[in-house]
This record gives sequence, structure tokens and C-alpha cells, in this order.
Amino acid sequence: MFIVMKPSCSRSDIDSVLAVLEKHQLAGTLSNESDATIIQVLETPQAPISKEDINELKKQVTQKIKVLAGVERIPTITRPYKLASRDFHPKDTIVRVPAACTAQGYVEIGGQNVVMMAGPCTVESEKQLLTTAEAVLEKGAVILRGGAFKPSTSPYGYRGMGLEGLKLLAKARDTFGLAVITEVMTPTDVSLVSEYADILQIGTRNMQNYMLLDEVGRSNMPVVLKRGMSAKIEEWLLAAEYILAQGNKNVILCERGIRTFESATRNTMDLSAIPVVKNLSHLPIISDPSQGTGHRHLVEAMSLASVTAGSDGLLVEVHPNPEEALKDGAQSLTIGQYQQLMARLNGVALAVGRSVTKPAFFSALSA
Amino acid sequence: MFIVMKPSCSRSDIDSVLAVLEKHQLAGTLSNESDATIIQVLETPQAPISKEDINELKKQVTQKIKVLAGVERIPTITRPYKLASRDFHPKDTIVRVPAACTAQGYVEIGGQNVVMMAGPCTVESEKQLLTTAEAVLEKGAVILRGGAFKPSTSPYGYRGMGLEGLKLLAKARDTFGLAVITEVMTPTDVSLVSEYADILQIGTRNMQNYMLLDEVGRSNMPVVLKRGMSAKIEEWLLAAEYILAQGNKNVILCERGIRTFESATRNTMDLSAIPVVKNLSHLPIISDPSQGTGHRHLVEAMSLASVTAGSDGLLVEVHPNPEEALKDGAQSLTIGQYQQLMARLNGVALAVGRSVTKPAFFSALSA
Amino acid sequence: MFIVMKPSCSRSDIDSVLAVLEKHQLAGTLSNESDATIIQVLETPQAPISKEDINELKKQVTQKIKVLAGVERIPTITRPYKLASRDFHPKDTIVRVPAACTAQGYVEIGGQNVVMMAGPCTVESEKQLLTTAEAVLEKGAVILRGGAFKPSTSPYGYRGMGLEGLKLLAKARDTFGLAVITEVMTPTDVSLVSEYADILQIGTRNMQNYMLLDEVGRSNMPVVLKRGMSAKIEEWLLAAEYILAQGNKNVILCERGIRTFESATRNTMDLSAIPVVKNLSHLPIISDPSQGTGHRHLVEAMSLASVTAGSDGLLVEVHPNPEEALKDGAQSLTIGQYQQLMARLNGVALAVGRSVTKPAFFSALSA
Amino acid sequence: MFIVMKPSCSRSDIDSVLAVLEKHQLAGTLSNESDATIIQVLETPQAPISKEDINELKKQVTQKIKVLAGVERIPTITRPYKLASRDFHPKDTIVRVPAACTAQGYVEIGGQNVVMMAGPCTVESEKQLLTTAEAVLEKGAVILRGGAFKPSTSPYGYRGMGLEGLKLLAKARDTFGLAVITEVMTPTDVSLVSEYADILQIGTRNMQNYMLLDEVGRSNMPVVLKRGMSAKIEEWLLAAEYILAQGNKNVILCERGIRTFESATRNTMDLSAIPVVKNLSHLPIISDPSQGTGHRHLVEAMSLASVTAGSDGLLVEVHPNPEEALKDGAQSLTIGQYQQLMARLNGVALAVGRSVTKPAFFSALSA
Repeated sequence: MFIVMKPSCSRSDIDSVLAVLEKHQLAGTLSNESDATIIQVLETPQAPISKEDINELKKQVTQKIKVLAGVERIPTITRPYKLASRDFHPKDTIVRVPAACTAQGYVEIGGQNVVMMAGPCTVESEKQLLTTAEAVLEKGAVILRGGAFKPSTSPYGYRGMGLEGLKLLAKARDTFGLAVITEVMTPTDVSLVSEYADILQIGTRNMQNYMLLDEVGRSNMPVVLKRGMSAKIEEWLLAAEYILAQGNKNVILCERGIRTFESATRNTMDLSAIPVVKNLSHLPIISDPSQGTGHRHLVEAMSLASVTAGSDGLLVEVHPNPEEALKDGAQSLTIGQYQQLMARLNGVALAVGRSVTKPAFFSALSA
Repeated sequence: MFIVMKPSCSRSDIDSVLAVLEKHQLAGTLSNESDATIIQVLETPQAPISKEDINELKKQVTQKIKVLAGVERIPTITRPYKLASRDFHPKDTIVRVPAACTAQGYVEIGGQNVVMMAGPCTVESEKQLLTTAEAVLEKGAVILRGGAFKPSTSPYGYRGMGLEGLKLLAKARDTFGLAVITEVMTPTDVSLVSEYADILQIGTRNMQNYMLLDEVGRSNMPVVLKRGMSAKIEEWLLAAEYILAQGNKNVILCERGIRTFESATRNTMDLSAIPVVKNLSHLPIISDPSQGTGHRHLVEAMSLASVTAGSDGLLVEVHPNPEEALKDGAQSLTIGQYQQLMARLNGVALAVGRSVTKPAFFSALSA
Repeated sequence: MFIVMKPSCSRSDIDSVLAVLEKHQLAGTLSNESDATIIQVLETPQAPISKEDINELKKQVTQKIKVLAGVERIPTITRPYKLASRDFHPKDTIVRVPAACTAQGYVEIGGQNVVMMAGPCTVESEKQLLTTAEAVLEKGAVILRGGAFKPSTSPYGYRGMGLEGLKLLAKARDTFGLAVITEVMTPTDVSLVSEYADILQIGTRNMQNYMLLDEVGRSNMPVVLKRGMSAKIEEWLLAAEYILAQGNKNVILCERGIRTFESATRNTMDLSAIPVVKNLSHLPIISDPSQGTGHRHLVEAMSLASVTAGSDGLLVEVHPNPEEALKDGAQSLTIGQYQQLMARLNGVALAVGRSVTKPAFFSALSA
Repeated sequence: MFIVMKPSCSRSDIDSVLAVLEKHQLAGTLSNESDATIIQVLETPQAPISKEDINELKKQVTQKIKVLAGVERIPTITRPYKLASRDFHPKDTIVRVPAACTAQGYVEIGGQNVVMMAGPCTVESEKQLLTTAEAVLEKGAVILRGGAFKPSTSPYGYRGMGLEGLKLLAKARDTFGLAVITEVMTPTDVSLVSEYADILQIGTRNMQNYMLLDEVGRSNMPVVLKRGMSAKIEEWLLAAEYILAQGNKNVILCERGIRTFESATRNTMDLSAIPVVKNLSHLPIISDPSQGTGHRHLVEAMSLASVTAGSDGLLVEVHPNPEEALKDGAQSLTIGQYQQLMARLNGVALAVGRSVTKPAFFSALSA
């Protein structure tokens, strides 16, 4: 249950609402949207009570509050996710990420333009990372991806460079002006990773790691939340709701394929999830065709198809020498393939009324 | 095992090859491609013999035959499907379907242009069918879809108008010049449906109805073979191989979604199947976003994404009044929605270097 | 909609009911159960009418008929399947199959006892079949399985001995008194296979081959209907309903695993389907752990677990020399393994209050 | 790579092995099994090197070490999991858990007897927990389950009593002598939960929460590791390997159903996973038919089937009044249903050569 206050509401208006809630043993938490103050009511009171009693309580409280001064509306949201639903927030959410390489100094995800995030699966060395960063920047990426903490199915697999990897990512950002996205795997690492990255990534295995979602929600960092490998769209939006419910509005969803019986591809990309999510939610959604297909030669087709289906961006693995990659070389584009993808992407984006966000010198060159 | 003869080979060259086969108790069947004569060797001899013996036999026979006059090559095909593989037939197959509404008098599926097949899920009445046919023709379809024999999950569901439906489809063709595609469900109906239709459709439930595949293979009709709802791509190509092995080269694959745990859509469209199939096979592939998504509001996005991913055509359900459709109204586009789809499809097709096949008067008008 | 007549009803009572139906343009078909006459009303009248109109029509007709002489009840069945549901037929259905090797001369499936069906995947030769038949009979099977018409994923795979295979199966029956189950793949083969077999098997790929279901329904043969490899339980019961709706009450369901992402087994056996089906339907259900697991060493555990979960029988592949089997050798038990399975099965059946149906000489020996 | 030392080896024998490893820049870690000292070699050296180089390095090191004094064997393990494989540890692992209610004072999981773990999904109150604990003890459970930290798909769902719940579980243990199993959801809670529980449970959503696995591996607590809802068996064993690799040998696997398209049950229990795991690994495996089916009326059949398939124990939800349960009431047995299950379970366990571990007073009574 959420109470949307008028932009003009006073602190005492808010206090009056909180007082009513408190009288009914309900906790209300405040959050400040750009255009409104929202009071979120924790629906489960301290002592567990029955479903019927909760509903009755909500009804009583709603009637008392909706007539108070400063209250704009108490939206009816029938979906189990609330803050993530279009009923709650009809306009598209646009997440802004600082990126020195752009003319404006920031990138918008979820707006008019399609955003490219490219780079190696895993940060392996300074040379590998900087070479890739420069190449993808030159070919039109504005965000650099690269794993420092890597989930590995086997305990004997490579688990990443850790802090050293984060430092290299920050160095690449300082050198080229690309924004940086990298994965965070456990709550206690959130503040560390946030020091070095511009966007936190939550991987498919952690989509329902609720303590991690909570912790990321308490930061204000942009977050890319990958779909769990067997998550229903509703569960995915509920995972996003965990982050939103803690006050972090900067959530970007990422379709990366689901697990099915088909073995010709690593996962089965569910591109219909893109228009489904756009319909149900206001959150941006991007697509990861590298993880989604597992095969380099399928990445271009699925990148273009994702954008046509409505994707707000792409997360693509690129490696200067995929044969020698420590992880997932088979699904990494070469720099030449990445360049070809970008050339085709522009036309496809235009055909659906969008353009691709470019680094600043691109515009300079074309002027 | 297949023996590709030189275009210049003589009848006696062929007979020499057959004689070698016969000496080893193997049967060879002839087929005439546009550019070559193919001798297909039935790999399982009359009496079952062990796998090792068959391989040894093939090796011996290959050595004897490859030196004969008129023999061009005996391709090595490692995939379990042979005639369907790109190893066997490196160039794209183009299936030609007569369509009076076009300037050339026929439509090519699998070539440069994207082909639209549109119409109602089910033929319900003359008025419904002709209204829809006229509307989709005007908005740019060249092939009319419509079910006369309908698979129904329940024996109490509507199973179609049968012969009357076929006659209405033929009437629509005669009236508007659209080619007609409709489903055939059992071997004994193949010749009947072939009298009225231009393309036979094999539905998802019948992808592994081998006697039906055999019978359709013995006709020379163009066939749209839908992917089984839980078929792997390899099994799908093997089902196509059944048809090809009987001599019918006019096979068109159709991705229509697979069954997964996701319940927000009727099926999960596997668009990566499109580039996977294009890589493994020379056969054309189209996409059915109506069955694939089950929801009208998702059809446009998935149609455009399919074409971007490489689809050679679309099979789309359109109904003049979807609310009153006997079957699958929820996934049928209105005529207005179909018009909007076509408007956007042109731009998307151009962006990937293709165009949309248009009825003749379209060109006339634009001239 | 079904009208259950009193056992004492007269022909003129029935005619009165049919007359009311006819007046409303509805067709009624008669079937004679052992304890009641059932009039099945075809719910879709000739001319398609709207769902609301059909419901209104049914309501009117029900009110007129329920007061007529000889009418016992018009059951309310909320599930989409009707004749297959426990609402329609609360008692367990028992399917009786003639089997000379038993003391009574027949086997009952769905009753107190668990029934063993064993034999080779495929009939390969007289020697192979008779050797296996004798062995499984000695170890306690009463039904012999063996494929004469074999579905093969590849057109180049072995498709069975056909009529010769059927004749060998009949010879094995004549020699050993075992009942025979074998697959039928297409409607036009139903009468041929029925001449030689005691039970028709419909394979997983044909679960929704509706013309085949119709044709089998018009025979009165016992039918084992395997679950489609991605069929929901509701769809499976609707496939059974096709057979029942044509008047054939002798339907036995068979769980054989569904398709999932797990690759350690050929399919994933859904043993919970057994108690689910027992709850929803009165039909017998058996289990096929050979197809279900694909690995010989898993067959015993899954056989025992199936019976504990409530399975009325087992369909198990046995081969005198699995290494040399033409098909599916990896999942065939040796005769020694089959013997061990039977030894353990007796104890497990007893623990859940059942016993295993034995050939006559077993009783003779133990007397 | 693992080096198994002779029981008689000396400290200097071990040091010699470690010295060889160090010379090749490889780290070796020691662990003491009951019957042998194991030196685990970290296969990825500090600086990333190529796969070929690692294999060459291992080969060289193996040749040097196998001839050293005190070295028993360097087993060849082809599976990606090592410590979890039967190749490494051919005998069944038995996990011992203290339980005052038993005659011996402990319970063995993975041995001859089947172990019952029963209790509410969620700890709701002292009365609810103690009532249930007493009831399940009386009917034959030796381990009490109950969630204090609860994963909830929605952030607005009930997330458990936390520390208060843990204290109530400990109180139930002190009162009735039952061992206690409860879930731990994040690395920083491992030490806290270990203070109150006898067995840590890792839930399905956390099967690949690698930091949590690492942390639990560093404790020496018995751990029940639930299968991820779409985890392949190999990935599940690799998750177990994470825990084993940190030195904790007390891992118990738990099959709780996988996600498929079937909607009649909450999940699809994969009972074939039980014999598959028994074949590949030495670890105990139990079964959770409450989560696995989601429906109370299916729990008994799937419990019995699990034990027949080889399960070493059951984890069953029981609630004194399921209608009022805060979570998952639909899948909780009543106390009466639990009693009936236990009555039948004894017979089934006997039929497969096992018995059910009983609390001490059971033996006393039956004596």
C-alpha cells in the first residue's frame, strides 16, 4: 500500500498520515521521488495477523487517510509488485548514469536512445581490459562491462580478480570516460563495488538473493537485475520490487535467456519478455545476447531482434582475442564483429524510431 | 548417404551407380534437383545389420562409386539430418508458391523478400473469410491463412468446417488472387487438402506424425512445418528430413514458440532458433507470433523482432472482429492493428536489407 | 453434457430424452456402461453459436430433461474433460485384457493387483522375441510388449518389422499365453494392429494425433495412452476423453517422463502425475521407467517408486542381449535384472496393500 | 586434484608433498578425513595460465608426487565435481547429527535408516512450534524443521521471526530432544544460525549463492543443500563441492522438485535424481515432498515413493492447523495425516531393506 502525497504537501501533512498509520500499528516509510513524496506502508504489522484482518485494516486506514490534507491518491495496484508496476508509475523510468565520454556527461537508459554496454566477460589483465575498452568506445559503446567477482559453477573455476579487477575497471573509466558496470555477488561487497562501478549488476543466480537485493536497494546505485534462469516474469518484477522497496529507483531489468530443453543454444532468449515487461512495468529493460545464446555467431541477430522488440540497450561480451579468454570465449564477439554489429544496429534502431547513444567524439566526427 | 551426379551425367552413368548399390543389397532412389541429379542411398539394408557393418559397407561402396563417370561428389554430412543440412545443399532453398495477386504470379519464400501470410485462425463463414482476405490483401499480405481442419485440445471443442472450409478458402483465392495455406492433420486428407490449398501446414502436435510427414513428402506441395511444442531444433530438422527424403523439396519451417514454465505468454518464442536454423540448414524459416505469444498486444513486437532475426515470413492471425472469433480471438489482430504492423514492418525489413513482398496493385499504386 | 439414465430405464424413456435434445438441435449419442446407459450430448450444435448461447441452451435443456422418467442424474462436471473425470465416474475403472497364461484367463488393470508388461523395445526376430517372452513369463510378466511399427526421430532410423512383427507377437501370445501390447501410429493401421494385439499403445508423439484417438475410440480395444513429452496432465486427460467420447471405455494412461532441462536422464519421470491422475480421474495409470529414465541402472528404483506412488502396472523393456538391441539397448534390462526387479517388486507392492498379478503356473508352483 | 596420503604418513611426508606443489606455484590445502589425510591442490595457480599449461603442470606434478613416501593414491576423477564424486570416496557418507530424543543420542543420515524431519514451514509462535514438535516426536520424527529466516518471493511477504524464531527452535530442542534444522540465507548469518540449529538448510534460491556455500563450508555444521529449482544434477553436485572444498564433509542433498511447464503441482519432483545421485556421489540425499508437490493430498504418495527410490530421509511440513498457517498451508500435513504417513512409511522402508529412525521411547514402548 502506497500513499502518493501532493507535490505541495507540507511536513505536517506527512506527519498526520504517519500518525494515522502508527495508531493502527503500521509502519510507514518515506521516499522522495522527483515529482512526489511517497509513503510506503509496511503491510505486515509486527504481530502476524490473518489475511482477512490485514485487508480490513487496510480498508479502514485508506478511508481515514484519503481525506487528509496533502494526500493526492492511494493507487489501486492489483499486481503483487507495486512500485514496479505501471499502475503505480505510468511513465517510463529513465535511469541516468554518469559517462564522461558523452556530450552531456551522462547516459540515459530507458529513454529515447538505445545504450550499448560492451566489454569482456571477465577482467583478465590491464592490457586486455584497456584494449577492449578503447575498441568498444571507438565503435560506439558508452558503458564498459567486465567481471571482477565472477560466479563460477565449479569451485575450481576462475572466480575473478576481485579488488584488482575493480581497480582496473576504474582505470579504464578514468582513461576513456566509459561508465562501468560490474557484478556484485554478496551484501557485504555492495559498498566496495559501488566505490568503483557506475552500475551494479546482479547475476541470474542471485536474482532471488533477497539480502543482496535489500542491500543494493539501500544504496542509490543504478542496478542491472538479470532474470533468474528459470524465473517467471512476475517473480523477476518482484525481485525488482525488493530493490525499489528500499528506496532505490534506479533498476534496469536484463533478459538473458531462460533454461529450457533446447541444447543448440546455452539458454533460450525470451524476447517476448521485453514487450511483456514494457506493458506491466515502467522500468527499463535491456538484453544480453551473449549469455542468452552462448554462441558468437548468434549474437548479432539476437542483438538486432532485441532492439526491434523494444530493448533499451544491449550487454554484449567483446574480447580482443576470444580464443584465449579465461571464461565464455565462445560467446564473445571479436572487435571486428562488434564493429559490424554496431553498423547494423543503427539502421535497426532508426526503423523502430530510436537511435543509439554515441560517445561524444562520434558526434564531433560526424559534424 | 547421397551421391550428387554431375549436371552432364548420362542415364547410363546413373545406372552404373545404381548397379554398384544393388550389388551391395542397397536401394538407391533418384531425385531431380534443378541443378543436379541426386541418388539417395537407403542406409538400412533389408536385413538389419550392425552399425559397424553398415559403416564398413558405406565405406566400400563410396570408394567404388566416387570414381565412376558422371559422379560429382559424395558429400560428408555429419549431422543426423542430411538433405536438410547446409552441408548437403549450401545455397538457400527458395520455395515458390503461385499467387495471382502478385506481379510475377508467384511468391518466393526464402529469398530476398519477407512474405506475409495473414488471415483468421479458423474459417468460420464466407463473410468472415472474404472480409478478412480482402482486408489483408489491401494491407499487403500475399498469402491467406485459415483453418478448415482444426486440432482441438478437447474433443468437445470446435474442430473446423472441414471440406466446406476448404471450399471457402479456394473461393477467397479465386476472388482475390491470394495463395492459400491451411492445415492437414492426417495422411488420408493430404490429397483432399492439396486440391484446395497452395501450401499445406503441419501443426505443432503433428511435427512427429511420421506417416503424415511421409505422405506430405510424396506430394510435391509446399509445406509449412511448425516446430513441435517441445521439439529440439535437431528433431525439427529431422522431421523436415522425413518430407525431403520422400522427394518433396518445398519445406518451410515455422517457429511458433516452445513450452516453458513462463505463463505470461502462451508459449515462449525461441527467436534464436531462426539464426540457428539458417546456419544449419538451407530451408526457409518463418515465424508465427500469434501462436507464439497468445496475446494480440505482443504480436507486432515479436513480428518485427522475428524479421530482424532473419525470418523469411510471418504467419499472423487477423480477424475482422476478434471478440467474436470461434478460436483464439485473444491472439488475433484487428484489421487496424494489422495495417499498423505492415507499416512498421517495411522499415524494419529495409533495415536488415530486405523488402516485403507486395501484391501487384501495391506496385501499381506506388509507380 | 451427459445424462445418466436409471438402470431400469426403458427404450421409450431414452427416446423421450433424445427427442428433447433434437428439438433443440442437439445430437445425443448413446453408450452402454455395465451399470448404466449414458446419453452424451454434443455440446456444439451444427451452426456455431456463442458461448453464452450454448450455456443458456444447456441450462434450458437440463431443466426439461431432469424431470423425465428414467433419468437418474445430470452430473455437474467442472473439469474440461468429462467422461474421464471422477465427477462423472466415481469408482475406479478396471480394464480387462484376455491373457491365457493366467488362472482366470484375463488380467485386470486398475484393480487390486499390479500388472507387469515386459519385453523388447522392438521386435527384431522370432528368436529374440520368443526368448524374451519365455523369460519374462517365467519371471512373472503377464503382458508382452514389443514394437512392430516404431516411431523413429530420423527417417533413416529403424522403423520396425511392421506386419511381420505383428505376426511374431501373435505367435508369442499363442505359444506362451501372454497378452500382447504394441504401438499403432496412424488411423488406417488401427484395424490391422487390433487383429494381432490385445492392447493398442499410443506413443508420446501421437498423444494429440486426434484422428488416431478418434479411430482407436471407435474400436473397443484396450488402449495404453502415453503422456505427450510436454503434455500437461489436463491435456493428457483430454486426449483420453477423445477415446472415451467415441465409446471406448478401456483407456489406460501411461506416465513415461516429460521433457525438461535435465540431461542426466532421457526424460524426467513425473511420478506425482500418478496420485494427481488418481485424484482427478477413474482411469488406470501405469508407468514406463525404461523410456522415463533412458538408463538401465535407474529402471528398478523408478519401477518400485512408481508402484509405491500408486501405479497400476509397469511397462518395462527387457532384452536377452541389450548390447545388440536395434533400438534403446541402453535402457533395456537384462533378463537377470528383470528377475531381480520382480523379486523386489513383490515386497513393495505388499507394503502398499497390493500384489503383483502372476501367471497361472506361479500359483501352481507355490501351491 | 587430490592427493590421498596413507593413514601411516608422517608430517614430514606431507611437507614433502607440499614442497613439490609450492615449487610449481600451486597451493595445497590439508584436510583430515576419519581414515586418511587429503591434500587438495588448488588447480588454478595465482597467475591465470592456459588450460593446456595447467594440464601439463598437473601431469608433471603428479609424476613427481606419486613416488613420494606416504602417498597412497592420486585418484583420477573425470567428473567436474571431485570430493563429491564416488570416484573420490567410494563408500556412502553418513552424516551424524546430535539428537537427545534417540537412544544413541544422535541420528545418522545416509546410513541404514530413513530419517524423518518434520515441522511447520515457518516458526509462527511458541505455542504453534511446541505443539507441532511434540506431535511429530510422538509420531516418530527425530528432527524438527521450521523456518526463522524465510525467503519470500515478494518483499511484502512474511520473512520470518528471525532471531526469535531461532530461540523458539532451540527451546523446542531442549524440551523434546529433537534435532533442529532451519534455513540460513546469507553468509553473515551462518554463525548466528549455527548457534541455535543442528542442521543448516540452504534453500533452492541459494543453491548457487557461492559466498554462502563458502561460508557454510568453513563451518563444520551438517548442511541440507536443496536443489535449485532449475539446477541440473551436475550443477547441484558442484554446489555441494563448494561446501566440501572448504572442508565441511557433512553435506546432505535434498530433492525438492524442479520447475517445468506442469501446473497441477507446484514443482515437478524428479525422483530419478535420487538413484542418479546415489550412483554419482557418496553423499546422502533426502526428499521434500511438501515443496515438491505443493499439495497436502500428494505428500504421502510422494514420500513413500521417495523412500522406495532410495531417499535417506524426508523433510515434511506439518502444521497443527494448516488453514491458519502463515505460509504454505496448502502443502502442510495435519498431525493426523502425518501419523498416517508414518504408519505406512514403516512398511515401505522395510520392503526396501531399511527401517525408520525412531525416537528412544518408541523402542522403549515396543520393547
